[in-house]
Amino acid sequence: MIAALKSLPPLTPNLTSLNSLLSSQLSEINECILEKMQSPVTLIPQIAGYLVSLGGKRLRPLLTVAAAELCGYKGKRHIQLAACVEFIHTATLLHDDVVDESILRRGQDTANALWSNKASVLVGDFLFSRAFELMVLDGSLDILQILSQASSSIAEGEVLQLSSSHNLNLNEETYLKIIGSKTACLFSAATEVGALVAGADESKRKALSRFGYSLGLAFQLMDDILDYAADQEKLGKTIGDDFREGKVTLPIILAYQQGIDCEFWEEAFHNGVRDNNALTHAIHLLKESGALLKTKHTAQVFIEEALECLTVFSECPLKIALEDLAHFSLYREA
Amino acid sequence: MIAALKSLPPLTPNLTSLNSLLSSQLSEINECILEKMQSPVTLIPQIAGYLVSLGGKRLRPLLTVAAAELCGYKGKRHIQLAACVEFIHTATLLHDDVVDESILRRGQDTANALWSNKASVLVGDFLFSRAFELMVLDGSLDILQILSQASSSIAEGEVLQLSSSHNLNLNEETYLKIIGSKTACLFSAATEVGALVAGADESKRKALSRFGYSLGLAFQLMDDILDYAADQEKLGKTIGDDFREGKVTLPIILAYQQGIDCEFWEEAFHNGVRDNNALTHAIHLLKESGALLKTKHTAQVFIEEALECLTVFSECPLKIALEDLAHFSLYREA
Repeated sequence: MIAALKSLPPLTPNLTSLNSLLSSQLSEINECILEKMQSPVTLIPQIAGYLVSLGGKRLRPLLTVAAAELCGYKGKRHIQLAACVEFIHTATLLHDDVVDESILRRGQDTANALWSNKASVLVGDFLFSRAFELMVLDGSLDILQILSQASSSIAEGEVLQLSSSHNLNLNEETYLKIIGSKTACLFSAATEVGALVAGADESKRKALSRFGYSLGLAFQLMDDILDYAADQEKLGKTIGDDFREGKVTLPIILAYQQGIDCEFWEEAFHNGVRDNNALTHAIHLLKESGALLKTKHTAQVFIEEALECLTVFSECPLKIALEDLAHFSLYREA
Repeated sequence: MIAALKSLPPLTPNLTSLNSLLSSQLSEINECILEKMQSPVTLIPQIAGYLVSLGGKRLRPLLTVAAAELCGYKGKRHIQLAACVEFIHTATLLHDDVVDESILRRGQDTANALWSNKASVLVGDFLFSRAFELMVLDGSLDILQILSQASSSIAEGEVLQLSSSHNLNLNEETYLKIIGSKTACLFSAATEVGALVAGADESKRKALSRFGYSLGLAFQLMDDILDYAADQEKLGKTIGDDFREGKVTLPIILAYQQGIDCEFWEEAFHNGVRDNNALTHAIHLLKESGALLKTKHTAQVFIEEALECLTVFSECPLKIALEDLAHFSLYREA
């Protein structure tokens, strides 16, 4: 499988092709987001607007639009549904930053740092509810089902991760379940909603749902790697956040399983010694043990699976752009 | 209007009649709540179960069931919808306790005090999403619309209250808007959903929606009064919570508007002098100025409006129980 991946022609590993193919739709998504987050309670558009202005890749809403148009959709419903997907994502970011006590996101202060945890919790709740209001206006119970399931799955994944923090005996299978719930489910829902709004047949719907899920897993694993191996400036946040928060991610699981310097990992995760010196040593161990490389290998396998899902679609610029995106996720720096 | 209220026969001001009329339905609601909050992630039913076990009045779900049966509903859908209403309410309680940094609820430790703010935020998110999943399974877009609007209204009301904290120039109109959003909307949605599931006509649906809204306003105003005037043991939480949090409620607005001891209120709300001595003086001023009595008078007016809404229904035990409940809200001690 990895061989097949390597045999693919070299690609510019970035979002450019999807962004340029869907540039007018991206503007429409951004307009829709700005319009629909309005509220007479001024603090709401203020905080939501700040988060939206930080940019971000708009990856999930772009996936909804791309999936819909790949299935031949010509209407406009996918724009608002894409905005719903982004609202759910933004709500989880606001709550995540409270849960993780983060102070930086994309190189800027987080909303909780600028306003307060209180405001972040409540504005997250608002965006979440607003997403459901918009879905109800759209009127598809199938779409509501997919996104309400994805939302409770995200919360389950986050709680499972919280329950598993500092647990060095977490295994790869459970870890993949956690990131499947907290990250991949929303990717999968984003693409499946696109297929649904286009009225795609069962095989295309399943293919897109699986594409999103595998892509989401790979995306999260690359996030886990970047937290230890990124160029801090390009990442836009401090590296080592997962380490400081005691989050046991796949690189840690793989390094600990090798049995090298177990005392160090136990000191760090059980006794809380996770200062900068410990981070430096952790990065050294993760690189030397090959744990980061193995994690990337796992991500590559999921990208292979994602690419495989796209084979049911005939060649077209959007399909190429989605393939490009899948590759990009293995080479991204932020 | 108040005269009309006074001319009503004396009633036992408690939930008893509604509870005994709907005792089997209440058991079904509790079973449904326990069943539907299950998750393979054990911390979720643990925390949600703790909150549910604290008891509470189950007022909102009882309103849904009562409204449905008052409109002649004979089916079973209202039980699960009532559980959805309670899930939304429980989610807001979990997030409120984080926002308010509360440590006691119904005389017991809050979930955030026992577990953590993190867990409370995430389990709240889960219950909220689960409510929407269950509503989607129920399949009515009208009901989804009402409860998704109510949810975003709650968040708007909470943010507006947060933005208005320490603001002594808040007026009664804005304050009623805040509690309309944060409290009355869910009461109104609870009763309207009951009417909808029963297929009631427009006039009954509107009457029940308005009944819920007015009852909710009165209920919140009585809550505001109890925070200064309750017997702490019966209340199940410390009195003066609103004061310590700097929440400007109607009693404070009315007392400040009288212009008596304004320096004290400014010292308390602008300069943060809100210790126990200040609380004692605040209670003294609120009682002496008649602000608590005036607040109760406003609550009475809303109860009159609520009772007026019920006149479209013919006499029956459920109608009497709802009237009893309306009166109860003016005499409750917790």
